[in-house]
Amino acid sequence: MEANKLTVLGKQAQTAASQLAQLATAKKNELLEAMATSLIAHQTEILAANARDLAEATQLKQSFIDRLTLTADRLADMAAGMRQVAHLDDPIGNVDKMWRNEAGLLIGKQRVPLGVIGIIFEARPNVTADAAALCFKSGNAVMLRGGKEAIQTNIAVSNALRSALEEQQVDANAIQMVTDTTHESANEMMQLVGYINVLIPRGSQRLIQHVVETAKVPVIETGAGNCHIYVDSDADLQMAIDITVNAKVQRPSVCNSAEKLVIHSAVAQNYLPKIAAALAEKDVQLRGDDRACSIVPNMIKADEEDWSTEYNDLIMAVKVVDSEDEAIAHINRYNTKHSEAIITNNYQNGQTFLQQIDAACVYINASTRFTDGFEFGFGAEIGISTQKLHARGPMGLNELTSIKYIIYGNGQVRK
Amino acid sequence: MEANKLTVLGKQAQTAASQLAQLATAKKNELLEAMATSLIAHQTEILAANARDLAEATQLKQSFIDRLTLTADRLADMAAGMRQVAHLDDPIGNVDKMWRNEAGLLIGKQRVPLGVIGIIFEARPNVTADAAALCFKSGNAVMLRGGKEAIQTNIAVSNALRSALEEQQVDANAIQMVTDTTHESANEMMQLVGYINVLIPRGSQRLIQHVVETAKVPVIETGAGNCHIYVDSDADLQMAIDITVNAKVQRPSVCNSAEKLVIHSAVAQNYLPKIAAALAEKDVQLRGDDRACSIVPNMIKADEEDWSTEYNDLIMAVKVVDSEDEAIAHINRYNTKHSEAIITNNYQNGQTFLQQIDAACVYINASTRFTDGFEFGFGAEIGISTQKLHARGPMGLNELTSIKYIIYGNGQVRK
Repeated sequence: MEANKLTVLGKQAQTAASQLAQLATAKKNELLEAMATSLIAHQTEILAANARDLAEATQLKQSFIDRLTLTADRLADMAAGMRQVAHLDDPIGNVDKMWRNEAGLLIGKQRVPLGVIGIIFEARPNVTADAAALCFKSGNAVMLRGGKEAIQTNIAVSNALRSALEEQQVDANAIQMVTDTTHESANEMMQLVGYINVLIPRGSQRLIQHVVETAKVPVIETGAGNCHIYVDSDADLQMAIDITVNAKVQRPSVCNSAEKLVIHSAVAQNYLPKIAAALAEKDVQLRGDDRACSIVPNMIKADEEDWSTEYNDLIMAVKVVDSEDEAIAHINRYNTKHSEAIITNNYQNGQTFLQQIDAACVYINASTRFTDGFEFGFGAEIGISTQKLHARGPMGLNELTSIKYIIYGNGQVRK
Repeated sequence: MEANKLTVLGKQAQTAASQLAQLATAKKNELLEAMATSLIAHQTEILAANARDLAEATQLKQSFIDRLTLTADRLADMAAGMRQVAHLDDPIGNVDKMWRNEAGLLIGKQRVPLGVIGIIFEARPNVTADAAALCFKSGNAVMLRGGKEAIQTNIAVSNALRSALEEQQVDANAIQMVTDTTHESANEMMQLVGYINVLIPRGSQRLIQHVVETAKVPVIETGAGNCHIYVDSDADLQMAIDITVNAKVQRPSVCNSAEKLVIHSAVAQNYLPKIAAALAEKDVQLRGDDRACSIVPNMIKADEEDWSTEYNDLIMAVKVVDSEDEAIAHINRYNTKHSEAIITNNYQNGQTFLQQIDAACVYINASTRFTDGFEFGFGAEIGISTQKLHARGPMGLNELTSIKYIIYGNGQVRK
């Protein structure tokens, strides 16, 4: 590709972002509705483009094909998702707090857009509409760079969205699809300092790691979840079974599902066989340390690598510990700072776990599966941050904003 | 240097950070007092080390020598600064908000430390104590990497701080000084992904740009301030004179001083000669566009480069505009997103300026010199962020924190 093509896109996106930052909430909502309508109006072209992508797909794994495939129903869901975003509260312009300083200045901390958000994602065309809607509502221009396997679908979807903006004389560069799907284009995008205010990779751990290690623009790291359920000595057995089974099997492929069971030795002899049986009923393969294996017959022996592995599958590794401290040390050593839960009826043990575990979301007596922007009540989610800078945990519209200080004076000068 | 020496320091810092995150506020305050006392107790060694640095200084510019020089008084100021930080509110542990979600979970957004903060700075030994105090109070370990010209002083200062921690059996690696001052050590520090949670460069624009362009760890960009005063058609003349003079001359070397004057043509003929005379009285050199030069005799002609230059000196460039829109477009094009001010008595023009200017701090009728953590009432400042991610504007203790969600359940599983 031409050396500076992405720079051109970046400049266009910044210009569009300046316009978008000034749009009233009602206008943004109207445009989101228009984009949703346009998606349906362009159904024929979009599904045709998707059929071409599917015909050219070289990877035939069922889960891959499933993610890539669009249908009339799925397109309707995408449009409905955009309309939902129109109904969410707009964070832009809100003043989080305002105070008077010693000199008499009235200082307000006001929410403003970040500017241009880059999204690098894999072959999931629904991300195009989702991400565009959330970025647009929060006043940000978006540069989308999807996987090459979905490029024809992605272009058709983004063209449908852009045409709705053009019809209302709004700069369509608020939503840009990078049509060059070479590695070079992704790498160039990661270097667009001054044009991309934040880059959010969405997809496999490999993709995310590559972006974190390569990008010069600010990145929000999302995703990886090596989540633990710790069953304390004071845990309720039935609750331990219900939460462990839910956290492991309700949707094993996602980042907030549990991958590890840590159990206190005081209850392991009694509880572990029952938890293991409930998991076995759901076809979960268990891998244990020596003590877990000695309690549950036929459990596979876990090796060192298991403790840090995110299976995203019906597999769970089990470790027996002699104290909460040991559980906390194990979790803090191997977790990915995503979501961790303790099952306990002991007040102090619960508080200690909340205090000492280093993770975006720490639970007492609940499933890790709740780590989600919708479940948290944000009404949306662009991803789950596992880093500490800017945003941590589920990211909704508010996490796509920055602030500026607006300051009302009456002639103050600094002494 | 050895390839992995900084990695070792990074690991030690992360271990210390885990301990520090758990310290109670009272303990942290007690340790800050002890560190302040230790600074004074080690005065002889510190001043001797400083004398060696000064004797070896090859750069003899007065401002450089002045920044590098420590005296008993300056050391007392550093100690007093640390004691002041002990008196600030501790943000750690505060729950910004807490709500119940649909499933009945009680979800709280709690302030936690970032972890390990890296600071790369130039030859200002006071930064060592300042930054160490702010990072320590906010529960963060700090890796300090100062300029080679001050290295003996920096080591003496950090040893004094560390000895106070050691005496109270707290991990002294909470405060680390990188003793290798080669470029390689700085570059390695910028690559310590997983060990440094955020890197804050403090110093010249060249240093900051190098860090932003080189670092793989998350960076907060601070500093550059090409700040404007816009005198609107409805401005009060005396206020325009007072604020422009204050913003330009009260401390011209700092980032929140004004570098540019933009003035509406409706008042330029009358106001500009008077503002120029007031600035000339303070030895400010003015550089104007054609119209400004035609109004004020003997004004130097500004060239294109002037509009984007941060002089940090008694120089100011002047542009005459025909509308507020033109002023806003000019400022948004050339500013560094730091601090901008309008002088106006027109309600709508003030509101428009606040809304449309893209900068960390936007003022009506006040000097840009107020952009400062102390003036804002934060009680401290580690720098002024000119980026939009994580923190923008003056950064106090709160900006050195992240959050975690603490979630209280009673057996909830995801449907």
